[in-house]
Amino acid sequence: MIGGIALSREVKKGLVIVGHGSKLKYYREVMEFHRKRIIKTGFFDEVELAFAAHGRKPTVDEVVKKMESREIYLVPLFMAYGVHTAEELPEMLGFKFREGAVEFEIDGKKVILCEPVGKDELITHAILNRVMAAIDELENSQ
Amino acid sequence: MIGGIALSREVKKGLVIVGHGSKLKYYREVMEFHRKRIIKTGFFDEVELAFAAHGRKPTVDEVVKKMESREIYLVPLFMAYGVHTAEELPEMLGFKFREGAVEFEIDGKKVILCEPVGKDELITHAILNRVMAAIDELENSQ
Repeated sequence: MIGGIALSREVKKGLVIVGHGSKLKYYREVMEFHRKRIIKTGFFDEVELAFAAHGRKPTVDEVVKKMESREIYLVPLFMAYGVHTAEELPEMLGFKFREGAVEFEIDGKKVILCEPVGKDELITHAILNRVMAAIDELENSQ
Repeated sequence: MIGGIALSREVKKGLVIVGHGSKLKYYREVMEFHRKRIIKTGFFDEVELAFAAHGRKPTVDEVVKKMESREIYLVPLFMAYGVHTAEELPEMLGFKFREGAVEFEIDGKKVILCEPVGKDELITHAILNRVMAAIDELENSQ
């Protein structure tokens, strides 16, 4: 500290990973895996999970309303815009769908809907990484 | 070349990106985006797309049968094992589902089913990258 001035964030920031969900256990495990890793980065004050597929709980608006953060990023854990992200989510949250980042308000909080994760260039590398992991696994099991 | 010896791969290798599909155009665009980028790496002799959701074409076995490669990697473009990857795919392709890389044969070709892309650690970074892209986009539009 210089002159007793502590750096502090003015606004609490939150992240909601918005998944589809599944009747099998694996989907939730994957969401938790990435959630825990993102918590460790310290980029966000809160990191929560929500579901966009019809009827799955908790929904995005339920989660956002419970969060303390005043600025909340929603990242759809989807490969692309589809029915859930381009139709159901805008209807539930009350914004007009368009491609790209969309800013709106829920419960007086600034909410930023990001583009689906599948569009990210790192997905190319994740695909290749899965191939390398499979080769390693099969080599080690021989 | 040293002494006229050219390096050559003994076996042609192929990759099939196995997606869910969607009635909207975005999903196919995302698959093509990653396919083209992987072709550019030169890691594979063939890179094709297939769909795992019931009734969507082409199916994985249709694509594998048409490919020239003798060693073909299937990477599910799914966040986690679910109904399509853990139930429908094993039934269609004739192997018993288990977690991890699975090796089997189709049409005399060696086929390696890799784990879903969602499990990859790079997905954590892709989520964070989407947040950074949204911040950039909103800043530039102001």
